[in-house]
Amino acid sequence: METVKRTIGVNIDPDGEFNALIWAPNAGRVSLRVCAGRIDLPMQKQDYGYWALKTDQLKDGDLYRIVLDDDKFLPDPSSLSQPKGVHEASQVIDLNAFAWTDEHWKNWHLNEYIIYELHTGTFTPEGTFEAIEGKLDYLKNLGITAIEIMPVAQFAGERNWGYDGVYPFAVQSSYGGPKALQHLVNTCHQKGIAVVLDVVYNHIGPEGNYFSEYGPYFTDKYNTPWGNAINFDDAWCDAVRQYYIENALMWFRDFHIDALRLDAVHAIKDFSPQHILAEIKEHVDHLIKETGRPHHLIIECDLNDTRYINPLDKAGFGMDAQWIDEFHHALRVTAGGERDGYYEDFHGIEHLAKTYNDAYVYDGQYSAHRHKNFGVKATDNPGNQFIVFSQNHDQIGNRMLGERSSQLFSFEMQKLMAAATLIAPFIPMLFMGEEWGEPNPFQYFVSHTDPELAEAVRKGRKAEFAAFHAEGEAPDPMDEQTFIQSKLQWQLKDKGQHQTMFAYYKKLIKLRQYLPVIHNLNRNQVKADADKDKQMLTLQRWYQGDYLVALMNF
Amino acid sequence: METVKRTIGVNIDPDGEFNALIWAPNAGRVSLRVCAGRIDLPMQKQDYGYWALKTDQLKDGDLYRIVLDDDKFLPDPSSLSQPKGVHEASQVIDLNAFAWTDEHWKNWHLNEYIIYELHTGTFTPEGTFEAIEGKLDYLKNLGITAIEIMPVAQFAGERNWGYDGVYPFAVQSSYGGPKALQHLVNTCHQKGIAVVLDVVYNHIGPEGNYFSEYGPYFTDKYNTPWGNAINFDDAWCDAVRQYYIENALMWFRDFHIDALRLDAVHAIKDFSPQHILAEIKEHVDHLIKETGRPHHLIIECDLNDTRYINPLDKAGFGMDAQWIDEFHHALRVTAGGERDGYYEDFHGIEHLAKTYNDAYVYDGQYSAHRHKNFGVKATDNPGNQFIVFSQNHDQIGNRMLGERSSQLFSFEMQKLMAAATLIAPFIPMLFMGEEWGEPNPFQYFVSHTDPELAEAVRKGRKAEFAAFHAEGEAPDPMDEQTFIQSKLQWQLKDKGQHQTMFAYYKKLIKLRQYLPVIHNLNRNQVKADADKDKQMLTLQRWYQGDYLVALMNF
Repeated sequence: METVKRTIGVNIDPDGEFNALIWAPNAGRVSLRVCAGRIDLPMQKQDYGYWALKTDQLKDGDLYRIVLDDDKFLPDPSSLSQPKGVHEASQVIDLNAFAWTDEHWKNWHLNEYIIYELHTGTFTPEGTFEAIEGKLDYLKNLGITAIEIMPVAQFAGERNWGYDGVYPFAVQSSYGGPKALQHLVNTCHQKGIAVVLDVVYNHIGPEGNYFSEYGPYFTDKYNTPWGNAINFDDAWCDAVRQYYIENALMWFRDFHIDALRLDAVHAIKDFSPQHILAEIKEHVDHLIKETGRPHHLIIECDLNDTRYINPLDKAGFGMDAQWIDEFHHALRVTAGGERDGYYEDFHGIEHLAKTYNDAYVYDGQYSAHRHKNFGVKATDNPGNQFIVFSQNHDQIGNRMLGERSSQLFSFEMQKLMAAATLIAPFIPMLFMGEEWGEPNPFQYFVSHTDPELAEAVRKGRKAEFAAFHAEGEAPDPMDEQTFIQSKLQWQLKDKGQHQTMFAYYKKLIKLRQYLPVIHNLNRNQVKADADKDKQMLTLQRWYQGDYLVALMNF
Repeated sequence: METVKRTIGVNIDPDGEFNALIWAPNAGRVSLRVCAGRIDLPMQKQDYGYWALKTDQLKDGDLYRIVLDDDKFLPDPSSLSQPKGVHEASQVIDLNAFAWTDEHWKNWHLNEYIIYELHTGTFTPEGTFEAIEGKLDYLKNLGITAIEIMPVAQFAGERNWGYDGVYPFAVQSSYGGPKALQHLVNTCHQKGIAVVLDVVYNHIGPEGNYFSEYGPYFTDKYNTPWGNAINFDDAWCDAVRQYYIENALMWFRDFHIDALRLDAVHAIKDFSPQHILAEIKEHVDHLIKETGRPHHLIIECDLNDTRYINPLDKAGFGMDAQWIDEFHHALRVTAGGERDGYYEDFHGIEHLAKTYNDAYVYDGQYSAHRHKNFGVKATDNPGNQFIVFSQNHDQIGNRMLGERSSQLFSFEMQKLMAAATLIAPFIPMLFMGEEWGEPNPFQYFVSHTDPELAEAVRKGRKAEFAAFHAEGEAPDPMDEQTFIQSKLQWQLKDKGQHQTMFAYYKKLIKLRQYLPVIHNLNRNQVKADADKDKQMLTLQRWYQGDYLVALMNF
């Protein structure tokens, strides 16, 4: 497979012509319609279900559709841009047109990452990539070294967390589209900030999903929470694997993204001899060799299985790091948060101590919530393989009312939770606004245009809270107000306790960056002990001559 | 987990009392009914959904049922014996009562295995284990070192290949039940014959399947050809894993079985950090250490993925050997067999040469039948990890009319196919009767007592032949005649060409056993070349000073 350029979809050649390559094994005839002038360019059948075309009748910015069997006029599944939304024409984009000026940028080592997770639509009043650029100096001042952007693949409407994206290669038009993302990354790099992009390889969103018209992108061998699984190992899987490998490569190569955060990889079902994650890693390693630019692969994974993060040559999938939700759960329960739902497995301060010591809380014990023995020991995995946080989009937004920690814990407890995270021997991550204790919620919002789907989402949302027994009505995800009230209130950050909290976060981050004993992520130089009676956690860390003891009174 | 004794089901204690341990997390109350006298013995709830009882009110041979919630009187899923069939009472069996006299037996190294696959019901007129004993001298004379018995787990009725078994621990009553199997194994060992038992860990048969009354033995996360997959990694999977681990251990420990042949392990879906096959291997290794008796684990696997047969310390699942159907397919197509269905991937003599050289025909190439790139290289796996055959129960019985090679190929071609198999640098396997060119078919037969199921099987059978385009009517699997006409005709073996064929097989086996150059399974001392025009295969093998060249004219 090519790593130097994208081969699927519509791409510009060195000679300025455009090449189209569409995988459509279900079709008997395929052509590409140039919308202006309604010109249909027939595509030539290739091996393995591909259709190809080379043409000088396209230019950067043109709208086109793929025509299957002369009667289906569809968007391109490998589309780079959907300026009019998920149901409408795709747009030709010359990914090489952007004039990068980040040649002096070098991605941070993971040890240096202090991640700031943000949602483009609610981070700023404008909800665009351009508006993010206006906040970079603020983030730099806070001490952030990497922003993590929630998924930007084109979704239905203008309001979505991003996990309903249906065009994995197309950057959400309402955020500014692909060129605005390139511009944002370039600006980040000039300011010394790395960019992590959240990508979804475990399912494809419900609305605007025309994939099955083209070919077997899905398999009925496995069931996932979102229906049939993406076809990574069944008949015809090669093209689907290539699709996702090329997606990962594109972000790194053509958007200069520094790290990907792969959503819920436990829902990627792949019994192939080589797991798709390992194959992605191999290709990314190849790209890194070619460009000299390092990139990180970070996973969200609910399996406590080190196979995912072990190196390829140790039969691992080679992922560089993973989120540990268990740190969050243990911290939260210790801080006095509720204990129902998946929190039932977390017993408080002993578990918090365990995660400092062992990364995973469950590394072989019986989990009452999962009804099975769960996890393996992560003894040999260094601290920079684990991302920790005291809140994130999911932990906030999956609450019925989407309350942040600021609405659930006292001011002092919020500070303690921030410190617990920022002095951990792992990679810390903040969720936008927590640094000033943003009181607005981060609620679940969508803007589906299909009324049946919208209703199903409303119902599903209600069903989801059965385990939490929260009271009151769930906000309507379809209501624009739900989106608007989830936006950050920037005017607060300079006021009263918000300002105090901001100063506190900034100080903590500075401590982390400049004290080697905190900055050092050698897990053999960490010891946490829990005093259950006093609800006190003692975290000891040492490095060379330095020694740190943190007493956390919960 | 205990390896020294079975812990689930009903088992005798050293003190002569019986212990019962039943996994029934779905039940609110569980008792054990002793059928004679209708005595209900309440069981005590344990952790993880188990229920336990110790009682002196049972003795070897007693019938009992498990009573769930006072109103469901069911057989025991861990039953050792179902003397009245799959729907009726279970029977207490003292597995330690048998007086073994095989203390001098030592299982053959896999290199010495010459396997003879047999189906108990059709191998002899009587269709019992006892009747097999009467044929052992015959098999020994032929040169067989191991018999492989098709599955014996209790199934509905008296006629079944065995893959519809529903009590994995119970030995089919119509074959003679558990004690007759112990007797057969003991006799085999006295005659120097190893016993391979075919076991099914990928599904449970349809009739008499009360498992879901007890607990989540199945998961809807994965779909298999037989419906929901067995639950090896979902909530509550620990008990299901223990169930199958204990099953493997029981055959080795309590029945002195020498090797297991695990049916279609590609249909075992398990994303746990440790695959269930690897966990079985660990426990078997532990048992071997305890008893000093070696055992082999052989898999049927349709994945060409060496992960299954690589050692545990190389991140493999540790299986000792696997069937290679691809050898059969390549041989068969080379011999002039049809090329439709799954045979479409096999191009004849070059592929036969490839399997001699590389074990797998597909080790990374695109498979037109599977519509994907398939397989990995098996370069580092020794010859004794691969079982080859020119026919087996599946390849014969899955044909619409169940014709053996004797009905499809000329006499000379049958001999060539036999030689091709017996001089291969792999472990050879015969299917019962092929050594005298048995003309009777081996057809698909069942004896379900549920009429709806019987009808579904009839229909399914017909649908299966869509790819083969065979002509005529499929024999009715439910008709007893289908079973009867699949029996061997022993009177033929001493007559005419049948006798010639037998002598030929015997000679080939003798050659294999006594010529080091054939017996040697070092794959680096093998070279096969195909001359496509002449349809001639040259197989060269060498060992120390010896050199063999076999010219096979197809």
